[in-house]
Amino acid sequence: MKSFTRYLEFNTSKRIEIVHINPEVEKIVKESKIKEGFALVSSLHVTSAVIVNENDPNLHSDFLAVLERLAPFKASYKHNVSDDNAAAHIWRHLLGNQALLPITNGKLELGVWGQVFYCEFDGQRKKRVLVKVIGE
Amino acid sequence: MKSFTRYLEFNTSKRIEIVHINPEVEKIVKESKIKEGFALVSSLHVTSAVIVNENDPNLHSDFLAVLERLAPFKASYKHNVSDDNAAAHIWRHLLGNQALLPITNGKLELGVWGQVFYCEFDGQRKKRVLVKVIGE
Amino acid sequence: MKSFTRYLEFNTSKRIEIVHINPEVEKIVKESKIKEGFALVSSLHVTSAVIVNENDPNLHSDFLAVLERLAPFKASYKHNVSDDNAAAHIWRHLLGNQALLPITNGKLELGVWGQVFYCEFDGQRKKRVLVKVIGE
Repeated sequence: MKSFTRYLEFNTSKRIEIVHINPEVEKIVKESKIKEGFALVSSLHVTSAVIVNENDPNLHSDFLAVLERLAPFKASYKHNVSDDNAAAHIWRHLLGNQALLPITNGKLELGVWGQVFYCEFDGQRKKRVLVKVIGE
Repeated sequence: MKSFTRYLEFNTSKRIEIVHINPEVEKIVKESKIKEGFALVSSLHVTSAVIVNENDPNLHSDFLAVLERLAPFKASYKHNVSDDNAAAHIWRHLLGNQALLPITNGKLELGVWGQVFYCEFDGQRKKRVLVKVIGE
Repeated sequence: MKSFTRYLEFNTSKRIEIVHINPEVEKIVKESKIKEGFALVSSLHVTSAVIVNENDPNLHSDFLAVLERLAPFKASYKHNVSDDNAAAHIWRHLLGNQALLPITNGKLELGVWGQVFYCEFDGQRKKRVLVKVIGE
């Protein structure tokens, strides 16, 4: 069994932003030389998420509009006594916080439309995402 | 380390449908001859999900009723300028889009009530689910 | 490839309770002697969840308040014809039902604020969580 770990860094210009990271993840999988296995893409911060979905900015706006309706960013939260980002912590879970990507014949296997995105909900500061590939 | 990959195909008669796939997944795990490891069950489409929960059709109706309330299928979405399935993309994330199943002594270990389901949110066309087993 | 499996047991005093289990999971990872790999922390019950987030009881209250607003525990559900815990089944999915933890250099790698929690939504009875570590 082989393992291969790399990190992606982000510092988004907007506080809330969905970033397409499929090319970076594909590059890491290629570098790993692992042909069959899994790539875990997981944020090292608890106010962001990683998802697989379609690369359509309109759809991403829809995601954010639904999240804002379900748990408004500016609503009153107990956590915000000491901070101001409770909704970011919540959105991470509503959207799904990590993605485990299958690797087959050395390539990500996500179907025709599946692409990997980093979902920043409390940005404008340095954040890191781990990509760990396990397999052979 | 061994790996074993198979695909399940679906073409549901209804657009939205929750399909019990536990027997098919169990069969693939058995065929893999892997005794200790993980089975990733992941949709190759971004408008469907895979979950582990109880095999109760009433409960599945409850899931769909909550999703419909949180993000109504016929509501206005930006993605629907070019398509009509934005809610399916959203529901996939609200419900949880993939399941990683532990394998112990050659069997799925999901507890007494846990069963695997494919959740189709934009069906009536061919869809595929990947089952990739990793372990030894 | 090595694998190492242990179980955590819970019997919460409240029906709904978020329990900090990071120390127990860290101990299992250490015992496994696995240096590079994944630890799957997954509930063996379909009315509870495992998440990674910040260890702030105020934030956990916020999580529960949002879940109660999105799918009220005492609302009418079809599943509750035969049981009374439909919301627990639903919450498990809204919050995210399992966590796959990266292990690097023999340690959980969850960032500065990430901690593992067991989220009980139908407690006051014996429940089990599986921790399965795979790697080398």
